[in-house]
Parts: sequence; C-alpha cells; structure tokens
Amino acid sequence: MTTLDATHDPKRRSWVESANAAGSDFPIQNLPFGRYRRAGSGEAFRIGVAIGDQVLDLRATGLIETDDMNVLMAATPAERQALRTKISDGLAAGSPQQAAWEKALLPQAQAEYTVPCRVGDYTDFYTGIHHATTIGKLFRPDQPLMPNYKWVPIGYHGRASSIIVSGQPFKRPQGQTKAPDAAEPSFGPAKRLDYELELGFYIGQGNALGSAIGIDDAEAHLFGVGLFNDWSARDLQAWEYQPLGPFLAKNFASTVSP
Amino acid sequence: MTTLDATHDPKRRSWVESANAAGSDFPIQNLPFGRYRRAGSGEAFRIGVAIGDQVLDLRATGLIETDDMNVLMAATPAERQALRTKISDGLAAGSPQQAAWEKALLPQAQAEYTVPCRVGDYTDFYTGIHHATTIGKLFRPDQPLMPNYKWVPIGYHGRASSIIVSGQPFKRPQGQTKAPDAAEPSFGPAKRLDYELELGFYIGQGNALGSAIGIDDAEAHLFGVGLFNDWSARDLQAWEYQPLGPFLAKNFASTVSP
Repeated sequence: MTTLDATHDPKRRSWVESANAAGSDFPIQNLPFGRYRRAGSGEAFRIGVAIGDQVLDLRATGLIETDDMNVLMAATPAERQALRTKISDGLAAGSPQQAAWEKALLPQAQAEYTVPCRVGDYTDFYTGIHHATTIGKLFRPDQPLMPNYKWVPIGYHGRASSIIVSGQPFKRPQGQTKAPDAAEPSFGPAKRLDYELELGFYIGQGNALGSAIGIDDAEAHLFGVGLFNDWSARDLQAWEYQPLGPFLAKNFASTVSP
Repeated sequence: MTTLDATHDPKRRSWVESANAAGSDFPIQNLPFGRYRRAGSGEAFRIGVAIGDQVLDLRATGLIETDDMNVLMAATPAERQALRTKISDGLAAGSPQQAAWEKALLPQAQAEYTVPCRVGDYTDFYTGIHHATTIGKLFRPDQPLMPNYKWVPIGYHGRASSIIVSGQPFKRPQGQTKAPDAAEPSFGPAKRLDYELELGFYIGQGNALGSAIGIDDAEAHLFGVGLFNDWSARDLQAWEYQPLGPFLAKNFASTVSP
C-alpha cells in the first residue's frame, strides 16, 4: 500500500482558497489529473490538475514537458509519487511557487475537458453482486446469477473507441429488438436506455504478455481512478447478448469523468 | 467495388523473378503490406511489401516517408490506390525503377515480422454458420445456434493488447475449469487449447461517433485483409462465458499473419 505522507495530511491547506472550503471536491488532498483547454478556444488539450474550483496547467509549472497523459501513465510509481508530492507542495499554503503558479490557473467554469488518455483496452468487470443480481433478473428472472459468478471474475471487453467524456452528447442507438411474443425482431431506436455507475481504473505500466502480476504488486500498475457510466440499451442487449455477451447494446457510448 | 486496372492484370509480370513462379503466394497481383526488419538486427520495424520471396522496403523506394502503418491506414482510398499503382508499376517487368529498387529488397527468409499496425479495437464476429454451429454444440448440444443468430450480427470485442504476430510464442493459459459433476471449479493449465482460422479485416478511415456508414461506402473504410487465429481455451471458456461472453479463454493470444 502507498505510504501516507505530508501530501495526505488532512490538515494541509492550499493557497488556492476555494480548495479549503468545506465540501470542496478538490481539496489539496485530492488532485486528479485530466486534459482540458479554455472552452471554445480550439487549442490543443493540456494536462491539468483540479484544485478547488480551478485547473492548474501542469506543463506551465515546469513539472512536466508533455501534453500526453499516456506518457505520465508509463512512469514508474516512484516517479509518479515524486510528481504528486511536488504538485501538492507547490499548491500548499506558503509555497514559494504561489506567485508563478497563480498564472497557470484557469477557473473550472471556463474549461472544457476531453477523455484523459488514449485507452488501449477497456475491460468491464461484473463485480458488484447487487448490480449483477439486479441486471440478471432483467434477462433471467429464474437465474440472475450464473453458477460461475462467485468463483471467477466475470468481465468482457468494451469498445475503447466509443469512450467519451462526461457531458459530451451522443445519439440514442438504433438496433434490433424482439418482444418475447413477436415472430420476428424489429428495428428502431432503443426504448430502454439505461446507465451504470461504475468505478474506472486506469492502468499505467503494463506487463509482458504471459507474465503474471502478483496481487501484492497490483497497486503499482494502477495510475488512477475515475467515475464511469456504461450506457446500456437494455432492449437491444436482451436480444443480442447470447452467446457472446453485450455488443451493440453498449458500443454507442461509454462516459468517463474528466 | 474497386475498378480493376493494370495492377490487377493477371498477365502482368515482375522483374522479381520469384514472383512469377507458378504458385507464388506473392505475385505482382498480390502485394500485401507488413512491418519487418532483418532478423536479429534489433532495428526498428519498417513497412515492407511482399513480392515473390522478397520484401520491398517501401520507405527506401521514396514512395512513403513513414514506418507507421497507421499513417497509411488513415489515407484516403484514392491515395492508397495511387500508392498501390506506383508499387505495382515499379515492380513490373521493364520498370525504370528496377536498378534502384533491387537495393531495397530483403529475402523473406532473412526477415522477421511484427504486428502490422496498432489495433485500436479488435472485434470478433461470429459470422460462419458452420463454425458457430460446431462451437455451439460444444457448449449447448441442445441449442447450438441461438434464436438471434440469423437476424443480428453476433460479435464481441477481443483484447487488442494480446494480438501477436504469427510464429510468436506464447504461454498456455492457466485458469478455472469446472467439470459438470464437480462440486467446485479447479485451477490449472488449459487442457483444451483450440484454434480458429478467421479472416481479419483492417479498418482504415473511421467515422464520427454516431454517424452511420452506408453499405455502399463500407469498402472505402477497408484497408486490408489478413489471416487471423483466435486461440481459444475451450475448457476455460465453457465455465466463464455466461452471461458476458468469452474473456480469459481468449485473452492470452490472438495471432495475425504478418
């Protein structure tokens, strides 16, 4: 497990005053990475760190030289921890960086975001037993959980190319559905569009094909965590999902937090 | 459909003599792209074109300036067709390029290959009815084909990061299996490792999220075709595949032709 240090001290405060407000999503103890630009500017997206109601331009601080999150994701855990510490120290109340870094802030209200990194593979695990039971009842009222559920991690690959950022509009999918009493399926817009609130894990450093990662080493491969909405067209899914799992019922959009 | 022109003329011959031999896999009418280097050299992979028993270094001909197949894949159909025509013309018997291009050849016996491009999403379609029936009988003897099979394209996403090139070794996967009469599953090496001979389609230019590609325009998005072996651990698959489809039973390796 990560050792807690000064960057996790609950008493640490920031010179960005909004970060110190009770209930702030982004106090100095929570400094998530994202990719952003000034809304409407059309500029290239840059890596930013949320702090209070602001975004800090990380390249402008001189701490990194890239706009590519995948470069950061490929760093070692020690390198990433060192970067985190420098960011926290620079944002901490009394930091000598304050004057320089104030120029690198943009109010979040003036920012727009994009998907934070290039996603190579997106894997969806069916790990919430309450969710699995609820969804299972929709399709198999007599057997919501399969016999394998409590033994092996049930997962499948999603479509990496349809991952979009929260707030980005998308079209309601069209597809085939078939009522139980219908002789043939029909085609049209999905009528049962559902959402799924999931936790997304961003994997940084990989492993060589065929080599195992021990449980004790797993955390070293984890770059970050975000929220994830796996939009689902349940009526399409019910008709298409056997025997190979959901496909078009999920492929139109999956939303990540910035 | 593509218009046939001189590059498809069955009578066209090459100054690469091995390409004219009866039964050659790579006559001048079939000039597949791949990525290769001199075996054991450790050099960066370059884009090559197979011709007879040779590989032509495409950048050395001056026709392209990249070693990145995805750059070629992003070209328009007209640009790709123009490049193809120049390659065929340069390799044709009597071509003024012969003296220069001979220096850009490497015998295939001295080459090693890699996966030809970066794969964003790998989608496996279950489109062969004989295959689907045969595999279906393994898992569901009483219902090999599901009611949806003849109505909607059945497909699922595979793991893009475990696609390797033909001939590249990989480890036999380990995983859970459960005999029908066993009370609990057991863990160990797969005992029923299977292969699937499939045709792989490389998609070049994409489309915007939510926009449809008409059937008549589909071919313009197709960059190329190759052979594909979707290795499958059938004993792992039988236990894990419900309700979300195959996962670990397929994730250890999928082999593409160079």
